[in-house]
Amino acid sequence: MRLKSFIEVDENSDFPLENIPFGIGDIPGSGPRICTRIGDTVIDLNALSRMGYFDNLGRDEAIFESSTLNAFIAKGRPFTCRVRSIIMESFMVGGAAETEQVILREMALYHFEQVKMLMPLHIGDYTDFYSSIEHATNVGKMLRDPENALLPNWKHIPVGYHGRASSIIASGASVHRPQGQTKPADKTSPVFGPSAQLDFELETAFVIGKETSLGHPVPITSTDEYIFGMLLFNDLSARDIQSWEYVPLGPFLSKNFASVVSPWVVTIEALQPFRVQGPVQEPEVLPYLRIAGKNNYDLNLEVLIQPEGKQEIVVCQSNFKYMYWSMNQQLAHHTVNGCNIRVGDLYASGTISGPEPGSYGSMLELSWKGTQPIELSDGSKRTFIQDNDTVIIRGYCKNENLRIGFGEARVTILPAIS
Amino acid sequence: MRLKSFIEVDENSDFPLENIPFGIGDIPGSGPRICTRIGDTVIDLNALSRMGYFDNLGRDEAIFESSTLNAFIAKGRPFTCRVRSIIMESFMVGGAAETEQVILREMALYHFEQVKMLMPLHIGDYTDFYSSIEHATNVGKMLRDPENALLPNWKHIPVGYHGRASSIIASGASVHRPQGQTKPADKTSPVFGPSAQLDFELETAFVIGKETSLGHPVPITSTDEYIFGMLLFNDLSARDIQSWEYVPLGPFLSKNFASVVSPWVVTIEALQPFRVQGPVQEPEVLPYLRIAGKNNYDLNLEVLIQPEGKQEIVVCQSNFKYMYWSMNQQLAHHTVNGCNIRVGDLYASGTISGPEPGSYGSMLELSWKGTQPIELSDGSKRTFIQDNDTVIIRGYCKNENLRIGFGEARVTILPAIS
Repeated sequence: MRLKSFIEVDENSDFPLENIPFGIGDIPGSGPRICTRIGDTVIDLNALSRMGYFDNLGRDEAIFESSTLNAFIAKGRPFTCRVRSIIMESFMVGGAAETEQVILREMALYHFEQVKMLMPLHIGDYTDFYSSIEHATNVGKMLRDPENALLPNWKHIPVGYHGRASSIIASGASVHRPQGQTKPADKTSPVFGPSAQLDFELETAFVIGKETSLGHPVPITSTDEYIFGMLLFNDLSARDIQSWEYVPLGPFLSKNFASVVSPWVVTIEALQPFRVQGPVQEPEVLPYLRIAGKNNYDLNLEVLIQPEGKQEIVVCQSNFKYMYWSMNQQLAHHTVNGCNIRVGDLYASGTISGPEPGSYGSMLELSWKGTQPIELSDGSKRTFIQDNDTVIIRGYCKNENLRIGFGEARVTILPAIS
Repeated sequence: MRLKSFIEVDENSDFPLENIPFGIGDIPGSGPRICTRIGDTVIDLNALSRMGYFDNLGRDEAIFESSTLNAFIAKGRPFTCRVRSIIMESFMVGGAAETEQVILREMALYHFEQVKMLMPLHIGDYTDFYSSIEHATNVGKMLRDPENALLPNWKHIPVGYHGRASSIIASGASVHRPQGQTKPADKTSPVFGPSAQLDFELETAFVIGKETSLGHPVPITSTDEYIFGMLLFNDLSARDIQSWEYVPLGPFLSKNFASVVSPWVVTIEALQPFRVQGPVQEPEVLPYLRIAGKNNYDLNLEVLIQPEGKQEIVVCQSNFKYMYWSMNQQLAHHTVNGCNIRVGDLYASGTISGPEPGSYGSMLELSWKGTQPIELSDGSKRTFIQDNDTVIIRGYCKNENLRIGFGEARVTILPAIS
């Protein structure tokens, strides 16, 4: 049964009263503030705080007047959960008196188009995993050996690598096509120029809510305590740069020119109704990675490409539930050697591909290494992303009663700077 | 000709008046402050600032009262160079009157043993390169193909990868031996336990002094403007974890449990007398990596191991001048795709091995993958690092007139947490 707000919420909205995600909005006349969203309405939590809504939680004047969510998240799960429940109670039908609603609309509520959403986090460290078996298998078939697509470690380790934090940007940005070294098959030496194989990677990411100190692993049964929430994530990738540079130390310039996040951090609490069982893991994993129960999420994901001035078209529909390795396993693995984690750290899933060709989470896979172009709404074809294309990732969970969504992670590719 | 200070400086000191490095010292009774060091004396720059020494630079009360160097460095090269020259002038013989010297000793000067040196930087992003041709060749011979030790990209790209910023710690710390997955050659499945092949990597790192915005490469001829200074760096590595996890995305848990930096950032200005020509690069590199002149540094490096309660013994003597790829080339490459850099970012060299066996910068190479144990001062032998060993990296530049040193990066390995 759905909660009903006095703020209008369309039944297909990503932001019902049960969601209450957190983000940083550039509030007109005020600047960066912690916000949430209900339907099409962005709510300035700093204004709510100054109106006294959170007085029972202990007055902290500065906490909502921030350009990142880090300090807010660091106050801990009991605090952030209480903030969510106060908002739910206050914005339910019957929650605030009609006179109060008038004041709220004057002081704290904005149509979403009035508020530019900013980068929500200061990311201390960013890690990208490689946890979809369909993606790893597709890549292995295309780039290595079709008969032995998965490397020997893949079913034992949630393989991951460190990425660049400085170049993670918020949805809505434009990014110039990266330039770099590539080694065409018909050349004996590498050449320099704009990447000709620019790609997206459909991913999600989770946000750390609680720090650890160096030397202290997070046992897998405790990992849920450390996961604050999730985002959509586009790990832009230059495939031609990647294939030349990546041995033996992994992807570097092919990835670190930009990654894009959706602006709203959806809390792990809001996602609880959508927990599902993940795939069976065979062979059995080592004890430090074993966890029972429903640790995946039934989270629908899609990627759209919008050529300049044209209609957007869906090029991929996938689901987070396909992930072979869960977030719990990723986090237990990441810390088992004593590596410390900090609030705001971001851990991305790796490309989320499903079992069907239409569910592959990258152009590399969708066009099968450029051999099978995709046709877009304007009749044009794509093997990789072209200049002035906008790439949009959307995601939502849905059951018969409830839809909890993430909004979108959107980026436009501009031509390389000459 | 050496400058002479009224503070005593031994001729073998790393810290003559010409050095004036910057670090963060825990000043007794005050807390973290920006400091420098002359001989055995640590100088509290916040105290100097309050005494008016830097008034001509524009009063900024908070700049020296900080727990990191970032804001100080971000004020720019003209500012930090002026601070160095004011300190040099003030601490020269004849620089401060004798009465003033008495006050300085009361207010701002400490014996180095009184001041615990802290982590000097907030590191936004950390990258590790792989730029020693001797190291890359040794590793290739041991782990891949002795006949084709260097991979095809190595002489075209200063190969690098992103590492973990959260676990970079200051000299003097203790670190528990990491645990993790390894795959012994005689087993069909991986096992879990403490690493049996814990190693050091002798490296230096440079610190970014000036930020860029996303999409804007640093041309190689401008790279010097962005390099604030250098540190010693120990990239601790668990070889058995590394060899199982590193395909296809690079090292991860084998590296991110801890890296150790020396506490003093030696400015690039102090190192200018020691610039030397690097190795000839053949084949010629692409134009964006071409730079003429002396871009290496004649920087002596050594690694010592001290078993618990025993004498330390030198196990490796190398030199930064051997590096195939210069810092300028590393930085031009890192940003050529538009990746942005921030003040305080750290870029490590990769293991610095020289041409002779005694100059190899890791136990992996020194013991040739464990086949040739090294004998220590107590008669014990090492193939890799043992529990309760202390590993010390030292470094200094020296010509007939001058020695500019880095101090040391020291870490003790404790047994794995059970």
